[in-house]
Amino acid sequence: MALQQDIKVAVDAVVFGYESKGNLSVLLIRRGVDPFKNTWALPGGLVLEHESLEAAVKRELKEETGVTMDYLEQLYTFGKPKRDPRNRVVSVSYFGLVRPNHFKIKADTDADEAKWFPVNDLPKLAFDHKTIFNTAEKRLKGKLLYQPIGFDLLSAEFPFSDLEHLYATILGQDIDRRNFRKKIMSFGFVEETNKIQQVRSGRPAKLFKFNKQKYDALLDNGFYFDIKFV
Amino acid sequence: MALQQDIKVAVDAVVFGYESKGNLSVLLIRRGVDPFKNTWALPGGLVLEHESLEAAVKRELKEETGVTMDYLEQLYTFGKPKRDPRNRVVSVSYFGLVRPNHFKIKADTDADEAKWFPVNDLPKLAFDHKTIFNTAEKRLKGKLLYQPIGFDLLSAEFPFSDLEHLYATILGQDIDRRNFRKKIMSFGFVEETNKIQQVRSGRPAKLFKFNKQKYDALLDNGFYFDIKFV
Repeated sequence: MALQQDIKVAVDAVVFGYESKGNLSVLLIRRGVDPFKNTWALPGGLVLEHESLEAAVKRELKEETGVTMDYLEQLYTFGKPKRDPRNRVVSVSYFGLVRPNHFKIKADTDADEAKWFPVNDLPKLAFDHKTIFNTAEKRLKGKLLYQPIGFDLLSAEFPFSDLEHLYATILGQDIDRRNFRKKIMSFGFVEETNKIQQVRSGRPAKLFKFNKQKYDALLDNGFYFDIKFV
Repeated sequence: MALQQDIKVAVDAVVFGYESKGNLSVLLIRRGVDPFKNTWALPGGLVLEHESLEAAVKRELKEETGVTMDYLEQLYTFGKPKRDPRNRVVSVSYFGLVRPNHFKIKADTDADEAKWFPVNDLPKLAFDHKTIFNTAEKRLKGKLLYQPIGFDLLSAEFPFSDLEHLYATILGQDIDRRNFRKKIMSFGFVEETNKIQQVRSGRPAKLFKFNKQKYDALLDNGFYFDIKFV
């Protein structure tokens, strides 16, 4: 193969945010440069020649939003010839899920502003970023059905309703609570503690915790969670 | 972002082959050019500036092996800085599964030879192609558990043992036949015909066929196939 070609390689990050009492959100930046100046977009940018794709996406995310993440999962590579008006740019996209209140947001470099948006109320996005977002959202929902989730998103000890709320929020649908609880407990990555949480209204709730060892084993091996909705 | 960067974009194809009486194989080419001249490798090469990634992988596959495919699925993008000794090259990899005897293999352009190799007896591969192959093999096996397979790989009407053999060959393990049959029939994408196939040895076998409508619905919606091995 001849090594003549003028295509650039970029990375983009779809960082979802989950708050225990809130909606699912996504971290966007308002572009400070052309093209699409002032339009909201996913954080991202060109890969430097000596850094890995993973290092590039973490660097761009940190530069443009102030958010530091240890790990982002590769999502898909978008390469339509006209997706960037300047030059052919292929974007390797990544995604992750965090607690927004664990991070201080600070826009810099190519971003004039960085902000969490509820996923069901997104502004118009630059480039083909809506397509990238849609792909990430579909993948995130799909993952819930074969991998455990929540270890970094819930407190060390939590009422069961917090876990339920997490799934319902990401899936964007109400779930059958009795069926959900029975199945979660059968997987073994969540266990009861002896503790009770006093809540302001309603009856006290038993607290649960994750079993890290079983959680990690299920991350590797997967399961199938046939979630029932109401 | 500044548009200065010298990274090339390539595509590579992992084409698996399934023969009804054979092993799972993969289509490789022997490189006719440096680097790795004479070493076996996945078919692939640089993306042209005005073609999509999908068009590029189909073109490279056809040029180097003579194989024409309508569809290849994107697998993963490999981008380690030193994976190509000439230049930084990011490879967007694709995979697919075909019947080798449906194609006439013919090496050309950068390939001196093209050949099917049994997946459990691969030669040493160029670049990081063993890693790409391993990723594809894992993905292919994983897909069997949540999507139907076989429509383009088996005859229009087939004895049930052909479908069993397909799964066992791809998974590389013997499966529990009774459990397999019960589950396949419960998904609804395979149905009995009234026909019987006379076989040389053993008792005549009932023939089965795919229900295209249910097959396609399951491709979209997925299922979970908890295959039991022996």
